[in-house]
Amino acid sequence: VHFASDNTSGVAPPILDALVAAASGYAPAYGDDELTLALDDRFGELFEHEVRVFPVVSGTAANSLALSVLTPPWGLMLCHEQAHVYVDEAGAPEHFTRGARLVALPGAAGKIDLEALRVVAARGGHGVHTSDPSALTLTQATELGTVYTPDEVAARAAIAHEHGLGVHMDGARFANAVASLGCTPADLTWRSGVDLLSFGATKNGAMGAEAVVVFDLDRVGDLERNRKRAGHLLSKMRYASAQLHAYIADGLWLQLAAHANGLAADLSSGLAGVDGVEVATPTEANEVFAFMPDELIGALEAKGAAFYVERVGDRPAVRLVVSWSSTPDDVEAFLAAARSGA
Amino acid sequence: VHFASDNTSGVAPPILDALVAAASGYAPAYGDDELTLALDDRFGELFEHEVRVFPVVSGTAANSLALSVLTPPWGLMLCHEQAHVYVDEAGAPEHFTRGARLVALPGAAGKIDLEALRVVAARGGHGVHTSDPSALTLTQATELGTVYTPDEVAARAAIAHEHGLGVHMDGARFANAVASLGCTPADLTWRSGVDLLSFGATKNGAMGAEAVVVFDLDRVGDLERNRKRAGHLLSKMRYASAQLHAYIADGLWLQLAAHANGLAADLSSGLAGVDGVEVATPTEANEVFAFMPDELIGALEAKGAAFYVERVGDRPAVRLVVSWSSTPDDVEAFLAAARSGA
Amino acid sequence: VHFASDNTSGVAPPILDALVAAASGYAPAYGDDELTLALDDRFGELFEHEVRVFPVVSGTAANSLALSVLTPPWGLMLCHEQAHVYVDEAGAPEHFTRGARLVALPGAAGKIDLEALRVVAARGGHGVHTSDPSALTLTQATELGTVYTPDEVAARAAIAHEHGLGVHMDGARFANAVASLGCTPADLTWRSGVDLLSFGATKNGAMGAEAVVVFDLDRVGDLERNRKRAGHLLSKMRYASAQLHAYIADGLWLQLAAHANGLAADLSSGLAGVDGVEVATPTEANEVFAFMPDELIGALEAKGAAFYVERVGDRPAVRLVVSWSSTPDDVEAFLAAARSGA
Amino acid sequence: VHFASDNTSGVAPPILDALVAAASGYAPAYGDDELTLALDDRFGELFEHEVRVFPVVSGTAANSLALSVLTPPWGLMLCHEQAHVYVDEAGAPEHFTRGARLVALPGAAGKIDLEALRVVAARGGHGVHTSDPSALTLTQATELGTVYTPDEVAARAAIAHEHGLGVHMDGARFANAVASLGCTPADLTWRSGVDLLSFGATKNGAMGAEAVVVFDLDRVGDLERNRKRAGHLLSKMRYASAQLHAYIADGLWLQLAAHANGLAADLSSGLAGVDGVEVATPTEANEVFAFMPDELIGALEAKGAAFYVERVGDRPAVRLVVSWSSTPDDVEAFLAAARSGA
Repeated sequence: VHFASDNTSGVAPPILDALVAAASGYAPAYGDDELTLALDDRFGELFEHEVRVFPVVSGTAANSLALSVLTPPWGLMLCHEQAHVYVDEAGAPEHFTRGARLVALPGAAGKIDLEALRVVAARGGHGVHTSDPSALTLTQATELGTVYTPDEVAARAAIAHEHGLGVHMDGARFANAVASLGCTPADLTWRSGVDLLSFGATKNGAMGAEAVVVFDLDRVGDLERNRKRAGHLLSKMRYASAQLHAYIADGLWLQLAAHANGLAADLSSGLAGVDGVEVATPTEANEVFAFMPDELIGALEAKGAAFYVERVGDRPAVRLVVSWSSTPDDVEAFLAAARSGA
Repeated sequence: VHFASDNTSGVAPPILDALVAAASGYAPAYGDDELTLALDDRFGELFEHEVRVFPVVSGTAANSLALSVLTPPWGLMLCHEQAHVYVDEAGAPEHFTRGARLVALPGAAGKIDLEALRVVAARGGHGVHTSDPSALTLTQATELGTVYTPDEVAARAAIAHEHGLGVHMDGARFANAVASLGCTPADLTWRSGVDLLSFGATKNGAMGAEAVVVFDLDRVGDLERNRKRAGHLLSKMRYASAQLHAYIADGLWLQLAAHANGLAADLSSGLAGVDGVEVATPTEANEVFAFMPDELIGALEAKGAAFYVERVGDRPAVRLVVSWSSTPDDVEAFLAAARSGA
Repeated sequence: VHFASDNTSGVAPPILDALVAAASGYAPAYGDDELTLALDDRFGELFEHEVRVFPVVSGTAANSLALSVLTPPWGLMLCHEQAHVYVDEAGAPEHFTRGARLVALPGAAGKIDLEALRVVAARGGHGVHTSDPSALTLTQATELGTVYTPDEVAARAAIAHEHGLGVHMDGARFANAVASLGCTPADLTWRSGVDLLSFGATKNGAMGAEAVVVFDLDRVGDLERNRKRAGHLLSKMRYASAQLHAYIADGLWLQLAAHANGLAADLSSGLAGVDGVEVATPTEANEVFAFMPDELIGALEAKGAAFYVERVGDRPAVRLVVSWSSTPDDVEAFLAAARSGA
Repeated sequence: VHFASDNTSGVAPPILDALVAAASGYAPAYGDDELTLALDDRFGELFEHEVRVFPVVSGTAANSLALSVLTPPWGLMLCHEQAHVYVDEAGAPEHFTRGARLVALPGAAGKIDLEALRVVAARGGHGVHTSDPSALTLTQATELGTVYTPDEVAARAAIAHEHGLGVHMDGARFANAVASLGCTPADLTWRSGVDLLSFGATKNGAMGAEAVVVFDLDRVGDLERNRKRAGHLLSKMRYASAQLHAYIADGLWLQLAAHANGLAADLSSGLAGVDGVEVATPTEANEVFAFMPDELIGALEAKGAAFYVERVGDRPAVRLVVSWSSTPDDVEAFLAAARSGA
């Protein structure tokens, strides 16, 4: 049973179909093809806002490119202390920004603490000696399976904007967040103060496609140059674009996400009923975090369950990631194993 | 008729089939999947040498990563003055190497002049003040449609190694070069002194897959870190790897390249017979360069032919790139248009 | 009365004499002069250890160069949250290391908390995804006027070395620390586990001279290249070297520091007796931190006293820096002003 | 006899006096002192133009900082193939610009060839794929002892500006050029199209002081940040500023330069009369280049003469650098040795 990560899943059939359909014939290279050229309009409709869309093939690239136009080399990029940009990207944001600094902020359940943000965001502006806060990045859904409400995003974005910081959202699991909240993509982004979004598709059914979506068009800046210079301007761009089109067509992205979220909720409530198991954070998207006895963890692993152990607060917690391709049987099998002490 | 670039072509059916086959089920992320883990052995067989293989999605990324392990920030990377790394990558090699310098060398027909190389390669070693030559990069097939023979590669690599430079080959059209020469991949790389190869597949039928192939295992260095840090460690790596496996299976890569080369030869000899047209460089791979009267160029463009005008020596020359998916009809149609003055 | 910073002071006469003496005649450039060539031996005697000495003109350059050889671009440099490298160098360490990350650790009285260090230092080694701890930097004397004892240095260095981190000491006020402790320079550096030292002279009587002193000769690495590349290889190096020689000759550096320390102690104990004033951190070197009523701060400023207000814990505290050129009258005048409510 | 370089000379007495005078008492740090604050006005008078002045301690730092505000990371910085920035700064311009590329242009007698400049400057503007020309840097006096006239500067600057490039002058020997031409500093800089100047003083009598002088105030950009971040914002800045003030007071800089130039002219005309010796480039400043038989070179070296052998065209040539402190006796001694076959 594969709960290690949603990026172990395959490709959702409609996306694969779109790839196959796009695979024949000629198309201009480097993004001058029709599929890519149509992205701005198509995403503009989805987000109810004029946007610029820049496809890339990894979340790390999307996040780093977005940050690269929000911060100078002497800027500070504020993030949650468990954010992917901070702990899982090997310094890619520093590489793309040519040396800006990530500053980790605390916060319960994966959400940046408002007061901590207020203190650090206010630190800039004292002349040439200091590194100045320049960007805030929020992960949505968070690294701990929770979801910022639009109001929670807005509260953080407002502090950021008050002090001149740009606001980025790492939406590797943006679909799961939107599906969870039942709000519009607009509500959760530019209406709440988000300037740039890393719009993830790979974890939720694509083969390899993410997009930097720019809402504040004044902030496009050097994004195209930085993308090219980082080797992320694809010659056969149409294939990334084809995935993105199929992903958002007919609500596919939200269906896939809702499916995963629903199974995660089942898994979470099931685990809550298992002796000795404690759900560690609210299950609001497609990830379940649970405290478990070491023996149970060992037994589940021995039985072949695939998952990681992360940290919630000071305690180790099992992380179970449900994907678009997970099934009720997968969930039931895991619960049965847990109930039986594996 | 699409002769603008081979990267306007689609995906070769066997590669598409492999992608579809790989698209279902679960696989470990970030290259721990079976397809990716099998690449070293598979390419080892192909190249008759122990290798390490690092898939990426663009030639720019492959070239820059390869150079990143050959040169320190104060190094000089020697290339042909028309090399892709020099004129078409927006400074990506400088970005990945954190500030090393590309030095352009002259040379007829896209091949680095031996004497110029000898002079510049010898310049290092004078202490802390100078930037030192650290890498040589050869494009194969060259930017002007010619091919270095193994002996020609070896002559340049020997000079490089004599002065302590590592040798990289930009093989965006490596298949066309091997098919043209009828030699083995080994002959054209490590046996001739190549330390790292950017093995291209995208232009020759893949959807988006290149590989850095490391022959000198002592030079792997920070390649993995640099790849991750540049956002090129794909979570669903299996899809890049599936393309690479299919590409080299059963000689597909050489069949596709031979097809393109053959049509390019036809196009070239056809053009040589057109009044006022002069083939500008030997047609040794899948690119044809031809001097043409301006009126003919305009007429061909007016008729919808897609191509670029580049520079051969001091003169503008039409560049026609034939791909795996070009057809004899395409060639004939172009020739007919040229003969009729378009 | 100038207590704003010790870098507002002038040049100590013996150092000025040495500069004048060095100012005539010819000397080889770029460090091949006799004064510079003698530094390694001379500092070797002072530190009772073979060393390499690299003069530069600013503490920021010294710190950044030292860190540049301890950390790769994906490294983490652990420092105190109030360290100069973290809050006063505009990201120079990131610039020199080409994108490594500073991580701020808490700790009372300017000293890095042992437990916090233990937790963060242990985080590395989990593969290509994470940035790994690579360097620990300790400020001596600390930013809050306290001094690490050799045992305190050793405890932190031991944790660092256990996890493979190199240890750097920012000794902008190293003289004040040594004078305060009455130990040898060796005790406070390599005997306690320090691998590289930024040996400061500018604040304590030089015109502009600092030195990176390397104890672990295996870690010299690219320091010379990085220095040159950063524009810090001085053509007329002899003048920096002349200052360094004069500074350590006949114990001048410790005499100057002891003088400043003694006056700081007087100032501190005097302030402790002023109504409403509370000394905020132990006065162990040449800096006094004191909590004062806002009105008193305003009154002192109005009277022309020059100082900064910094943060001790969560509270603002007046920082008073005594220099080698401060006098008992300066101290008495300040105390009198404070006692009279300014 | 010291003709190795002008940076082997000592400190001119008026500059040393100014340093001694500045060495006592307190002054605000980091450039807020009176001497530094007065630089803009003082240099404004000298150059008959509003300017911003940024003192640093090395020519490499001055050049790199100036270039850092003229070019983005994907920019091309055009220079002569023998320019100091290209062959003697270990990639500092690349470091400060975060990866821009230096492009070497040919040109007789150390001056960039107009036609070559015209071709390369026009290459930009073709979209995201190419690195674009962004800066032109001229060395004045040139690396080969010649001097660009104001018209020659203007011709090159006009081409640069026509294509949107900023114009930098590396004036490590700017004084020698002005003294040679008898023009005003204004004539040779902003009136001829120079946007930023590295104003050298170190080689011509200072201890260690250079200044970036910005004429086009719109181009100050991030210069202050870049300087701080590179460790070149001196805490005791007054000492660099004191040198600069003394250097330009009462025409000292031009007197020192004229003295050196005059001796160089004597040396040059003397050598022209020596059998087998050929002056290699016009002696227009304080450097003499001469072709000599190998035996003569060896004999002179054996007799203790200090000089370097460089390249003029394809031939090795002795480089003799006369400084402010050279004497007619030095010149006569060298000539006597040369005449006698050493």
